[in-house]
Amino acid sequence: MVEREIDRWVPGDITPKELADASRHLILAGGKRLRPCLVLTACEAVGGRAEDAIEAAAAIEMLHNFTLIHDDIMDRDEFRRNVKTVHTIWGEAMAIIAGDALFSRVFSAMTENARRLGLSGRRTAELLSAVSEASFEVCRGQAMDMLFEGRLDVTEDEYMEMVSGKTGALTDVSAKVGGILGGGSRSQVSALSAYGRLLGMAFQIQDDVLGLIGREEKFGKPVGSDIREGKKTLVVIRALSTAGEGERRTILRALGRRNASRSEVAAAIGVLRKIGAVDYASERARELVENAKARLRALPQSTPRSILEKLADFVIRREF
Amino acid sequence: MVEREIDRWVPGDITPKELADASRHLILAGGKRLRPCLVLTACEAVGGRAEDAIEAAAAIEMLHNFTLIHDDIMDRDEFRRNVKTVHTIWGEAMAIIAGDALFSRVFSAMTENARRLGLSGRRTAELLSAVSEASFEVCRGQAMDMLFEGRLDVTEDEYMEMVSGKTGALTDVSAKVGGILGGGSRSQVSALSAYGRLLGMAFQIQDDVLGLIGREEKFGKPVGSDIREGKKTLVVIRALSTAGEGERRTILRALGRRNASRSEVAAAIGVLRKIGAVDYASERARELVENAKARLRALPQSTPRSILEKLADFVIRREF
Repeated sequence: MVEREIDRWVPGDITPKELADASRHLILAGGKRLRPCLVLTACEAVGGRAEDAIEAAAAIEMLHNFTLIHDDIMDRDEFRRNVKTVHTIWGEAMAIIAGDALFSRVFSAMTENARRLGLSGRRTAELLSAVSEASFEVCRGQAMDMLFEGRLDVTEDEYMEMVSGKTGALTDVSAKVGGILGGGSRSQVSALSAYGRLLGMAFQIQDDVLGLIGREEKFGKPVGSDIREGKKTLVVIRALSTAGEGERRTILRALGRRNASRSEVAAAIGVLRKIGAVDYASERARELVENAKARLRALPQSTPRSILEKLADFVIRREF
Repeated sequence: MVEREIDRWVPGDITPKELADASRHLILAGGKRLRPCLVLTACEAVGGRAEDAIEAAAAIEMLHNFTLIHDDIMDRDEFRRNVKTVHTIWGEAMAIIAGDALFSRVFSAMTENARRLGLSGRRTAELLSAVSEASFEVCRGQAMDMLFEGRLDVTEDEYMEMVSGKTGALTDVSAKVGGILGGGSRSQVSALSAYGRLLGMAFQIQDDVLGLIGREEKFGKPVGSDIREGKKTLVVIRALSTAGEGERRTILRALGRRNASRSEVAAAIGVLRKIGAVDYASERARELVENAKARLRALPQSTPRSILEKLADFVIRREF
């Protein structure tokens, strides 16, 4: 259902053709569709039907893909989902427009969902502003993430604030709009929103871990690229604050050095594991997931609720 | 009023600070504020009060500035409004995010306007989808404009389609949302929309003319940069289809050559003037403006209507 809906909003016959291809490339390459899944399941968890939130589910996936296309330009990443990134194929200029185009479709799809359900002005505004505010938070988080690359003294609190915006805001709004469209009560919608936020933060921490110790062909992008880019992941922040002097030197020989050798990167990752920084991050992700699941207790027990619980577990068990 | 409103949506205390500065830079550098003016005057022209459309006016100006920030990255332009472009100061990555952030604020401001007026679900959706559809059209127009750079056989019809999206869609939606928020009838809103579309197309043609024969310090960006970038402006398209062989050679020595000398660019511009291509474009812009003004006859005669007429004249008389 979601695939068909996305295809309706970003069809192959957009002119010019290059824009159609560039906008669709990453979406067609796959992805877990975790966020649309959150939208539809959250909708069902408050008693709605999945069909009632289908445009929103597509909208959120388009929003997600828009941020990925722009992030890949900024991070100069060449692979994602095991395919070349948009700017690597079509150039930066077209990749910027492709992202912008997807972003604009988000609001068309979202508005159409509200209109189809005949929502009131108040509910329509609530829905749309939830999405635009989340988008703004994502931008702020992304800017922080980028600025952190130039620093070695990022604190765990700063990291949590960044990740709450960069990743948490989008999973938060996914669950939230599902709840709104499903006709959830104020307290149900706010529980879903909190669940989504915590789940997203756990997701990002796990993503950072997989970027270090994952299997490349499963994960879909080169292991260790975060290290070369100087990303201040929770693992790295923990390591920098606990490593001995020699270990720190080994980390810094690869961290933020775009032309660090494979063995230098491997040595840095070895240290991150050895001193327990990877385990530390995994444990933080696990706590966030427990916390997320606890928020779901505000909802009636049901199959969709238990799917949301399992989604939370999946976020930290996944290898891709 | 508009300045204060924009400041409310993109305040100086956004964190991180770099994102606040980068997002505000171009807005604070000035600009004509033509589009907010269209929004407010269109609102009044159907009997509304300007205050009723103030968030929308700010939203449209933010939307405009978002497209400029991204366009400047794509075109590698270094100056606009007589100041350095965002990416020239903060780098491409931050400029991409700054544009995205402005774009997200557009929908927050727009939604807030609908909510404040207590619009129905139907009207709220109409408003929001008008803005998101226009944004998508702008992306398509921008993509076409970019792809045209690599071609020498762009037709006048293709140019008109491109410019209708790249510039016309935004002035169209400016007048349209003003009309909707002012409570205009269906036929009034559609007249305003047509007026805005034609005015925007005239605006772009005049902009292209000023980019060739304008006074640099007034216009705010280097004269002739469109030539070096290989932009297929109406002037260039007309010239390529009417120039003799020697004249064509002079044009092609500068067109699309980033390191063409000042004298090569000046010679090309000389040819464009001499063979009447500049006059031809100015005449097309004048016709579009007459056409735009004719659409206003669907509205009752009033001061705001006559301001809209004068705005149309301004578009082709301006030197900046």
